[in-house]
Amino acid sequence: MSISFNDIPGLQVGHAQDIEAVTGCTVVLCPAGAVGGVDQRGGAPGTRETDLLRPMHLVEKVHAVLLTGGSAFGLAAADGVVRWLEENQIGYDTGIARVPIVPAAVLFDLSVGRADVRPDAAMGYAACQNAVNESGPPKMGSIGAGTGARVGNILGPAGRMNGGLGSAVIELGERLLVGALFAVNCFGDVIDPATGQILAGARKLPEQTFADTMQVLKQGVAGGFSSPGNTVIGVVATNATLSKEMVNKVAQMAHDGLARAIRPAHTMFDGDTIFALATEQGPAAEVNVIGAFAAEATTQAIINAVMAASPSLSA
Amino acid sequence: MSISFNDIPGLQVGHAQDIEAVTGCTVVLCPAGAVGGVDQRGGAPGTRETDLLRPMHLVEKVHAVLLTGGSAFGLAAADGVVRWLEENQIGYDTGIARVPIVPAAVLFDLSVGRADVRPDAAMGYAACQNAVNESGPPKMGSIGAGTGARVGNILGPAGRMNGGLGSAVIELGERLLVGALFAVNCFGDVIDPATGQILAGARKLPEQTFADTMQVLKQGVAGGFSSPGNTVIGVVATNATLSKEMVNKVAQMAHDGLARAIRPAHTMFDGDTIFALATEQGPAAEVNVIGAFAAEATTQAIINAVMAASPSLSA
Repeated sequence: MSISFNDIPGLQVGHAQDIEAVTGCTVVLCPAGAVGGVDQRGGAPGTRETDLLRPMHLVEKVHAVLLTGGSAFGLAAADGVVRWLEENQIGYDTGIARVPIVPAAVLFDLSVGRADVRPDAAMGYAACQNAVNESGPPKMGSIGAGTGARVGNILGPAGRMNGGLGSAVIELGERLLVGALFAVNCFGDVIDPATGQILAGARKLPEQTFADTMQVLKQGVAGGFSSPGNTVIGVVATNATLSKEMVNKVAQMAHDGLARAIRPAHTMFDGDTIFALATEQGPAAEVNVIGAFAAEATTQAIINAVMAASPSLSA
Repeated sequence: MSISFNDIPGLQVGHAQDIEAVTGCTVVLCPAGAVGGVDQRGGAPGTRETDLLRPMHLVEKVHAVLLTGGSAFGLAAADGVVRWLEENQIGYDTGIARVPIVPAAVLFDLSVGRADVRPDAAMGYAACQNAVNESGPPKMGSIGAGTGARVGNILGPAGRMNGGLGSAVIELGERLLVGALFAVNCFGDVIDPATGQILAGARKLPEQTFADTMQVLKQGVAGGFSSPGNTVIGVVATNATLSKEMVNKVAQMAHDGLARAIRPAHTMFDGDTIFALATEQGPAAEVNVIGAFAAEATTQAIINAVMAASPSLSA
């Protein structure tokens, strides 16, 4: 049986979505805590609890990471994750109460489906229940935080393609995994770095051929691009034992995988944010190896996301 | 006549090197000042005057950027650049004196040639004179800061290949250029993102075939890699008019070009640092376009650096 992101010891993944409203959220639970880090590089992020993840801040372990649609409204879904964790007595022990630490990041999907229905606390709570109750191979495509994700926005909504949610894992040794889980809603095109070809992105209409976002940009130096709202958000995770500082380095290096899979990446229209988690249920590992393969897993997860959301791409 | 990095209005490039000691430095002069920014992402940098480049700091314009060999010792070459600028009455006007602003970054080349001879103030001064006196197409390969540059360090010094200095420019419109100038001394392999193939990097001996650094890393999760010292340093520049904040965004996006051309990039062994300059001698421009093509120019400059330093690669 092949391994998946869901096999990383210490993690559980759950999704919840509103198919009619075309939005949703995805939670990565780490009930025993995982050392957390983050690198935020896009120009238009929507985030929660990112500051505490950085070096020189007290808290080391997080109990869940939430990826969600709904733009800034969607941050409310984290309240449901916090509630679920509190009910399960999971959190940072302050002596007075266990305080769940739930970093979160949003993507903009208000232009797809209903703009007035967004992931809320109930949906975040449901994603946690699904994380515990569901098993089997990882779900990908138009699910969870990827439900309303679209890619290739430069020519406007009509030229976009489905983005989606994807994951990947790389086995670095008998007991050592590094994986990535991403919701892909990028302004740019998705590229296969093994061939340099565009896999998904902005299409010219009516012919439906790829416009090549870089070429469109070149023609429009003065600006005025369509930007209905974008952002790639994800989690890279390993069962290795790494310090908080090194987990942040892994989050940083993972952005290289995003850069290879998306062109252009990290624009002012994207809120690109990557969380990193180390569940410490495996061996110590060299940070450069984990970071380098976190980038590889990121590239593969992004490709898997668009392939699953638009199955015709894999034909 | 084809255009080059040296054609960006407001910039002059000069090199100086010690061929016997196998080290050198490269200066990008901007006598009329250029709005400066930086993004530093490698784990082992050696830099000077990077803090003032960031948003929320007083000084907006820099007068030169120095790329140099010699590890931390090489920062002394910036003193010579400062002296040359002072003699030419170029600097930030404090009312008391014109203070030249010269951000600099180093690469580690002490393991090549003589370790006890490093770029110094005299060499930095000479690079400025060469910037003013020389003309013609840009010099690339084993010159200036690229003199002692090597790539592909994971199997130790014997398996390395020449890195070098390279530049590239992209014309975005009749009067708008964006270019990149890089000294390539990376831990990882140099990749052609159009094909996914390794162009230069660590070689297995004696067969001299590429080892593929990612594969070597995968076999060595526990660490213990050779790391004689690495780092990719560069400047991306445009004649567009951009705010200091946006120039920093351009430096950030340029790292995507580094990520695409080098695998792995941004390791703890690399001090990867990219400066950005906007000479404001051209039109206003959309920051996402400049950033996206700064990344493209970065990729091309890195490829040009290794191609020029090891001409057999282009065969």
